[in-house]
Amino acid sequence: MIEQLRATHAAAAQIRRLSDAAKTKLLLQLAQAVEAACDAILAANQLDLAKIDDADPKKDRLLLNPERIAALAGSIREVAALRDPCGAVLLDKILPNGLKLRKISVPLGVVGIIYESRPNVTLDVSALCLRSGNAAVLRGGSDALQTNRALAAIIQDVLEQAGLSRDVVALLPPDRELVKDMLTATRYIDVIIPRGSDALIRFVRENSLVPVIETGAGVCHTYVHESADLEKAKAIVVNAKVSRPSVCNSLDTIVIDSKIAPAFLPLLRDDFEKWKVEVFADPVAFDILQQAGFERLQPASESDFGREFLDYKCSVKTVNGLPEALDHIRTYSSRHSEAIVAEDTAVCRTFLEETDAAAVFANASTRFTDGGMFGLGAEIGISTQKLHARGPFALEKLVTEKWVVEGEGQVRW
Amino acid sequence: MIEQLRATHAAAAQIRRLSDAAKTKLLLQLAQAVEAACDAILAANQLDLAKIDDADPKKDRLLLNPERIAALAGSIREVAALRDPCGAVLLDKILPNGLKLRKISVPLGVVGIIYESRPNVTLDVSALCLRSGNAAVLRGGSDALQTNRALAAIIQDVLEQAGLSRDVVALLPPDRELVKDMLTATRYIDVIIPRGSDALIRFVRENSLVPVIETGAGVCHTYVHESADLEKAKAIVVNAKVSRPSVCNSLDTIVIDSKIAPAFLPLLRDDFEKWKVEVFADPVAFDILQQAGFERLQPASESDFGREFLDYKCSVKTVNGLPEALDHIRTYSSRHSEAIVAEDTAVCRTFLEETDAAAVFANASTRFTDGGMFGLGAEIGISTQKLHARGPFALEKLVTEKWVVEGEGQVRW
Repeated sequence: MIEQLRATHAAAAQIRRLSDAAKTKLLLQLAQAVEAACDAILAANQLDLAKIDDADPKKDRLLLNPERIAALAGSIREVAALRDPCGAVLLDKILPNGLKLRKISVPLGVVGIIYESRPNVTLDVSALCLRSGNAAVLRGGSDALQTNRALAAIIQDVLEQAGLSRDVVALLPPDRELVKDMLTATRYIDVIIPRGSDALIRFVRENSLVPVIETGAGVCHTYVHESADLEKAKAIVVNAKVSRPSVCNSLDTIVIDSKIAPAFLPLLRDDFEKWKVEVFADPVAFDILQQAGFERLQPASESDFGREFLDYKCSVKTVNGLPEALDHIRTYSSRHSEAIVAEDTAVCRTFLEETDAAAVFANASTRFTDGGMFGLGAEIGISTQKLHARGPFALEKLVTEKWVVEGEGQVRW
Repeated sequence: MIEQLRATHAAAAQIRRLSDAAKTKLLLQLAQAVEAACDAILAANQLDLAKIDDADPKKDRLLLNPERIAALAGSIREVAALRDPCGAVLLDKILPNGLKLRKISVPLGVVGIIYESRPNVTLDVSALCLRSGNAAVLRGGSDALQTNRALAAIIQDVLEQAGLSRDVVALLPPDRELVKDMLTATRYIDVIIPRGSDALIRFVRENSLVPVIETGAGVCHTYVHESADLEKAKAIVVNAKVSRPSVCNSLDTIVIDSKIAPAFLPLLRDDFEKWKVEVFADPVAFDILQQAGFERLQPASESDFGREFLDYKCSVKTVNGLPEALDHIRTYSSRHSEAIVAEDTAVCRTFLEETDAAAVFANASTRFTDGGMFGLGAEIGISTQKLHARGPFALEKLVTEKWVVEGEGQVRW
């Protein structure tokens, strides 16, 4: 295993040296190879699927079909078309002593990814790493082993055909012990990205000596201020909750000014009934919602605030004005995406300034927190940490900086 | 303790809201207050010094005197004059759906610093944090307790006089258990910076759930290529080794092309004798150095490569050309600062591209890796990691990014 990491670390120089055009070409060849190998991928995928119970929700995450494979190839072509993040000159100056100083963007080196059953990660992440000149060490879940092996072989064949080492992208066996080896391989892996359940992310964070970029949970609030246009607020809240509840930028808690709660909350009834949204309401909101005839209604317990539902469920918190709303959000937010709906522009400005989150919204749905939506292209996830990458963690952040200093014999006494 | 962290986390909003001018003013007041309290600081420092044995090297690190206090005040004024890193608009565009998207630089929030006996850290780091709109939680060593208390009280008095909470800068008691509490306080501390011994840094890295910025060891090589101007090479090598051997950017290993080793190595003799530099040489170099009459000479053992000497000591490795030199450096470098001396510009270019380090030099001393030298002002240290801050970790990196999105009711289905 250390042999594999050493080989990938050495091979990283090969992908680092490629020009923008060569990396683009490599990705286009990969997209084509994935399409050409459709049958082989599906056959491998069948072997994995056969081991999973039909009722297991993992089955859908694991499943590939011709449409999904075509979509994966399409994603690779999109990444191919993104701008190369390497080689940017971030600073260029001559120091008073004559030294020529430049700061340039360079690949991170070797990116380690630890993920679970989704085999699409194998291709998505490899494409992002190769596009940005990085080598990759992949450690996927055992459920997807045959599929991942088939996909990794395609990637490695394309690398080899391009005259590069197969070690540029390595797939490790799904052995638990190897995860620990990855997390301590500070000499060979430059950054580790965990993708999957909270438990996986927590394990990686707690055990990694290699720096980690975490794409964490989203406990997202939408605060409806008393100055809100209620129809706008309704559209935003409904969209943020029901358009795709399983993702991290979906709404978890409605924070509502008590003054307008009786006018606003009943407006949600038809949509919430249609989408079968279950509501956990604080006492003030509970009475209003009950009177308005909400059927899927429960009193909120303390644990319903700060809870990431990832489902057709949300909590409602009544507040008396902006300071109370900010305070609630400060206490329960996971600092992912937070929104206000208000016509009062001063209130919006205060909210945007005071709320500590990767993305803050005025009069828009939190569902927009997304690399594609923000114009950054494909993303590895949404970072809720503050170092290096905050918010959409996209191609542009798969680089580091390097100081390059050229002199004519300068010394410093 | 959690109460203190919560209070500092809440108070962080106060310093975050200050304008550039208000932060500058605060720092100038702090510099003045430090000068005015010189006697009180020295009295507190005496209490700490009295507990340390005269022979203990810690004593000098701990010692303050009027000159050192004046220098500390001067450093605070230099930080005051630096450009505010907050509020920079890093991206500003209107998305096709009409959303107004901006990415702006904002303070990290609460910076935790864990350090050892140097009391200057208390002021240096507080100044950098306040200048960049951050609150700080300081955990200094028990040796400097009285001095740190005196300095923290001065900072807190200045904060209070400016109408801010004293909790913006908190000094924790030097209790071992509290360090663990800091390292797990992900809700209240945004980043932890360890400053001090390798053992401290390793402990923090291994135990922190809060993201860490590490300012690590520097195992620095200077490679003298066969095309080198030997007088230039001599000046650079001698400077990199002896100008300040106790710091991380000083030279640890001379890598020398075997072709020019007999001509080059003897040139170092007079300077190395003058500075009493002890040399650990590989067999080829050993013979040359012995013939040249080097007195402080030993055969190198394997552990003398990749060793950070922090002293008037270095190792010498003989190689046959650039590829071997790159390979040696790849194996033993801590990726801090690496240099080549060569007149062949193609060789220099290859070295600068192929060497993976925070700073790479052609024909200059590695001693230049420094925030001040690079024009960034005071630094917290030199980061050898690749995320967020690489190389001099200065004021400009004490910020994070925030995505601010303003709409008119946009939703995403």
